[in-house]
Amino acid sequence: MQGAILVLSGPSGAGKSTIINHASDEIGEYYFSISTTTRKPREGERDGVEYYFVTHEEFEEGIKAGEFLEYATVHGNYYGTSLKPVKEALEEGKLVIFDIDVQGHRLVRAKMGDYVTSAFITPPTLSELKRRLYARATDDSSIIERRIANAKEEIKAVVEFDFVIINDDIEKASKEFATIANAARLKQSHQELENFVKIWDN
Amino acid sequence: MQGAILVLSGPSGAGKSTIINHASDEIGEYYFSISTTTRKPREGERDGVEYYFVTHEEFEEGIKAGEFLEYATVHGNYYGTSLKPVKEALEEGKLVIFDIDVQGHRLVRAKMGDYVTSAFITPPTLSELKRRLYARATDDSSIIERRIANAKEEIKAVVEFDFVIINDDIEKASKEFATIANAARLKQSHQELENFVKIWDN
Repeated sequence: MQGAILVLSGPSGAGKSTIINHASDEIGEYYFSISTTTRKPREGERDGVEYYFVTHEEFEEGIKAGEFLEYATVHGNYYGTSLKPVKEALEEGKLVIFDIDVQGHRLVRAKMGDYVTSAFITPPTLSELKRRLYARATDDSSIIERRIANAKEEIKAVVEFDFVIINDDIEKASKEFATIANAARLKQSHQELENFVKIWDN
Repeated sequence: MQGAILVLSGPSGAGKSTIINHASDEIGEYYFSISTTTRKPREGERDGVEYYFVTHEEFEEGIKAGEFLEYATVHGNYYGTSLKPVKEALEEGKLVIFDIDVQGHRLVRAKMGDYVTSAFITPPTLSELKRRLYARATDDSSIIERRIANAKEEIKAVVEFDFVIINDDIEKASKEFATIANAARLKQSHQELENFVKIWDN
């Protein structure tokens, strides 16, 4: 497979989507991995756009069939990444971008480490995260508090990532993201390198 | 320390200097690490430009004093990298570029892995390397044959590098190099990250 994987993690409110959109002209074609979930769609969410929405039974059949690259349960709902579209995109030589949590990062790295570059995206401080989550006012305060508690846990995992983008300036953060995405494309898998060595010397 | 290290390795004739010169506008300010050697200067070589030229005794005093980040003997001559200018450049936040062999890469990574990004630069094939070495005609054929033998050994180490640049097109190779150099600058040391985590959550 010729493609590359870029895993993005970081708290809700870090600005991941904004950064990707901002940098999209600079990073060329990519496939944004869509997660599968058993949670109910929220208003405005469309199947195959924000998530693939499936039933609990469908998800568990997928687990048994080994269809998931990674999955986890969060508050009683399954969230996971199907392997098939990722493999297809890699075979087409695409950069596959994941927006998953630090647990998902560990699993993807364990299974496909050869292809993985990862970046943790974070607001500069906890108080700035709080400010952003309350300012956008899309969630009630119990959800926001849960997100803040999650963020405090997740930030401890930054050392596991190849890069950390501190989003205190959207222009700077987007530029850093584009540099990282373009470098991620240049990462070769061991398999490719071994083939190269074989061919090189004859 | 805020800087970053970019180690470049690859056979003589891979085009490393050409690539660095070609990309220099895109990669910003950097410090190119100058090696210290006990071999005699060749015609046109200046102390402090191509190498720091020292005596055998001076080099061995440096070894005893722990002044070298890495060193090796090649055909009876010492070659090494002094730690002091590297540390100074890192403290100034600079990108430090090394042009060293695969053994040097191992040593630098072992000692300063937190700061290191590495790229192996190579011609696309062994026969192309031969063609280039004979075409530039600066060395006699016994030296060229030794370089080819070294290259056959060194190519086996490509899997140890973060990136491999196959120099079959100078424009493409320079662009890849610039992307890698700019990503290298974004690599944070564990120490920096641990400080960030400490400060983040309060």
